[in-house]
Amino acid sequence: MSDWLAALDRRAELRAKAGLTRTLRPRAAADDIVDLAGNDYLGLSRHPVVTAAATAALDEYGLGATGSRLVRGSTAPHHALEEDLAGWLGAERALLFSSGYLANVGAVRGLVRPRTLLVSDAHNHASLIDGCRISGAETVVTPHADVDAVRAALAATPGRPAVVVTESVFSVDGDLAPLAELHAVARAHDALLLVDDAHGLGVVGPGGAGGATAADLAGEPDVIVTATLSKALGGAGGVVAAPAEFVRHLVETGRTFIFDTAPPPAVVAGVRAAMGLAWRGEQLRAELGDRVAFAVRRLRAAGLTGSAPKGAVVSVTAPGPEAATAWATDCRDRGVAVGCFRPPSTPDSRSRLRLTVNVGVPRADFERALEVVVECAP
Amino acid sequence: MSDWLAALDRRAELRAKAGLTRTLRPRAAADDIVDLAGNDYLGLSRHPVVTAAATAALDEYGLGATGSRLVRGSTAPHHALEEDLAGWLGAERALLFSSGYLANVGAVRGLVRPRTLLVSDAHNHASLIDGCRISGAETVVTPHADVDAVRAALAATPGRPAVVVTESVFSVDGDLAPLAELHAVARAHDALLLVDDAHGLGVVGPGGAGGATAADLAGEPDVIVTATLSKALGGAGGVVAAPAEFVRHLVETGRTFIFDTAPPPAVVAGVRAAMGLAWRGEQLRAELGDRVAFAVRRLRAAGLTGSAPKGAVVSVTAPGPEAATAWATDCRDRGVAVGCFRPPSTPDSRSRLRLTVNVGVPRADFERALEVVVECAP
Repeated sequence: MSDWLAALDRRAELRAKAGLTRTLRPRAAADDIVDLAGNDYLGLSRHPVVTAAATAALDEYGLGATGSRLVRGSTAPHHALEEDLAGWLGAERALLFSSGYLANVGAVRGLVRPRTLLVSDAHNHASLIDGCRISGAETVVTPHADVDAVRAALAATPGRPAVVVTESVFSVDGDLAPLAELHAVARAHDALLLVDDAHGLGVVGPGGAGGATAADLAGEPDVIVTATLSKALGGAGGVVAAPAEFVRHLVETGRTFIFDTAPPPAVVAGVRAAMGLAWRGEQLRAELGDRVAFAVRRLRAAGLTGSAPKGAVVSVTAPGPEAATAWATDCRDRGVAVGCFRPPSTPDSRSRLRLTVNVGVPRADFERALEVVVECAP
Repeated sequence: MSDWLAALDRRAELRAKAGLTRTLRPRAAADDIVDLAGNDYLGLSRHPVVTAAATAALDEYGLGATGSRLVRGSTAPHHALEEDLAGWLGAERALLFSSGYLANVGAVRGLVRPRTLLVSDAHNHASLIDGCRISGAETVVTPHADVDAVRAALAATPGRPAVVVTESVFSVDGDLAPLAELHAVARAHDALLLVDDAHGLGVVGPGGAGGATAADLAGEPDVIVTATLSKALGGAGGVVAAPAEFVRHLVETGRTFIFDTAPPPAVVAGVRAAMGLAWRGEQLRAELGDRVAFAVRRLRAAGLTGSAPKGAVVSVTAPGPEAATAWATDCRDRGVAVGCFRPPSTPDSRSRLRLTVNVGVPRADFERALEVVVECAP
C-alpha cells in the first residue's frame, strides 16, 4: 500500500512537471471577482424567483428526496419540471437525473442494443464518452463536426443499429454541431441522433429551447436530447427528453436512474422556476448575444485567436498549459475569474482560456474584465 | 427508427409479463402514508436545523454551483463539509461528488492502475459495478461476504495491484460485510480495500461514523471509504474519504469530479448541518436500533423470513416478483410505503420487500405500519 501512495505521488509530480496540476481555489459567496468562468449564462442561479421557489420546496419537502423515485415515490416538483421540460423541448417525455453526467451515461447506455455502433464526435464531453465506454458498444470516434466522417462510419456498417452522439454547443470552444446535417445522415442510415444540449439549453434556439430545437429536431422520433440543469438554468441535475417509449425504458432499466437518489425537490423546484424565466428570457438572450459578439470583437482586435461561438462560450488559444495557467492566474490576481482548459480537459491537446459570458455580471464589469484578459495575454 | 421504438415496446411487454414493470408513483409532500421505503434513517431531511442551513446558503450563494469547483472555485460550504466529513470518518481528506453514484464510479476508477485486479462482492451496488466496468480492469466477482473467496482471488494473482470492493451495510438486506476480515486479507496481499458506507454512515459505528469506523479501519492508509449524503444525512451527493494523496489524485484526474458541476452550496450546507446532528445523534441511533430489533421480532413472530440487519434496512422475502409487487401495493393501499425489490435490483434474483426504519416516523405509526406489512403478507 505504501507503493500505492508513492505511485500517486510520482504521478502528481509528473503532472506538475507538465504544468497540469489542478488545485481547488476558494470562492467567496460575494467578492469583487468578475465571473467569466461559470456557466450561469442567464444569471438565474441567484434570481429571487428561483431561490424563493427552492426555499418554498425546502419548507414543504425537506432537503433530500430520501430515495430513488421508484422506491420512495415521485414528488410533484419532479413531475412538474419533467412536464415543463418536455413542453419546452418539444419532446414527448422528459426524465430527471441527479446530474447531467448521469443523464448522459444513462441515455447512451439505454440506446445500445446488441450490435449497436456508436458514432461519437471527438470533442464530446467526458460523460458522453463514459456512456459509450460503459455501454460496451463498439464506438467510432469521428473528427470534430465532420458530417462526412459520420456518414462514412454509418455506411461502413449497414444493417446494424447505430447512434450518432454529439453535443449541440460544444463545451470547450462554444461552436455549434451541424445538427440538421447530422440528423439527415443519421436518418438516411436508420440511425438515432443523441444531442447533448448542455450548453445550448436556455442560450440558443427559439425560446432558448436549445440547439436541437434550433435545428428543427424537436420531437423527432429518432432524436434524443440530454441536458444539464446546472448551466443556463442555474441549478443542478440533468434531463433526458425523448419519445415516451425511451423514457419508459430508462425508468424501468436505466441504472443511473433506478439506483440513484432523486435530485432534491428544492433543487428541482428552483430549476423549474428558472426554466420559466429562461423560456421567456428573450431579453436576457439578446443581451447575452450582444456580449458574446462584443467579446469576440475585442479579443480579435487584440490579435488573440479564439473560437467563433454560437453559444455563450468563448475560447482563446494559449501557447501551452503553463502559459494558460499563468494567464488565468494573472487574470484572477486582477479580479477576473476565467476558465483554464488544458489537457486532458481539451479534446485536441490545445490549451486555452475559456470565457463564459454571463448576463448576471454588470455590463461595465464584463467589459472591464475583457480588458484584463487582453492585457494579461502572454 | 420505428424499429427502435417497436423494439422498446416489445421489451416493455416482456418485462410486464415477467412482473418487472416499474412505474413512478406520485408522493405528496405531506400525506398519511407511513414511510418504510426511504433512506432518511435519522429523519434529518426535514430537521429544521438542516433546512435552515440550506435556506441560508440559498440566500448567500443562489441555487447552483454554476460550474465545476476547479473551474468556478470552491465555496466555503464545500470546503467546510469536506473538513467535517474527514474528521468524522477519521480520514485525511474527503472530496464531495454530486451523487454517491459518481463518487463510487470515481473512486473505483481512480484506484485502478495498469494490471489492477478488482475483487468485487456479488451484492455490490450498481454504482460500484459500473465503476468496475468503466475502469476496464479485470474484475473477479466473489460470492457475497465470502472472505475465503476474496483471499483465493488475491492469492491467485500475486504481484498485481488489487482492490477489494465492498459495501459496509448492504443496501438490499442490511447485512454488514466482514470488514475487519476483508481488511486483514487485503493487507496480507498488499491490496487496497474500498468500502461503500452508504447505508452505514450515520447509522452504525461510534458517533455514527459508519461501518469502516466500526471495524476500526478509519484512517488506515489502504482503506478508501465512499458514502452517499442522501441517506442518513438526508441530503444529496456523495463523498470519498481517503488518504490525501488519493483525494488529490481524484481532484486532478477524476472524470466524475472534474467534468461535473459541483453540488449546490445550499445542499452542501444542509448536509453539513445534518452531519453535525448525526455525529451527536446517539439518541436517534438508540431509537433506530430499538425499532430495527422490534421489526425483526415482529416479522419473525409472523413467520416471515427476513434478514438479520446490522443497519436500518430490513428485508423480507417474497415468493416472486409479482407477489412482491402485490404485497407492496396492498401495503400502500393501507397507507404504508415499502420498498419492493425485484430483479435486476436484487443481487440474487430473489424478490423481497425492503423496509427501511426511519426515526422521523412517529413510533406508533411505525408499529402500526409493521402490522400492515404482516397482515398483507402473501
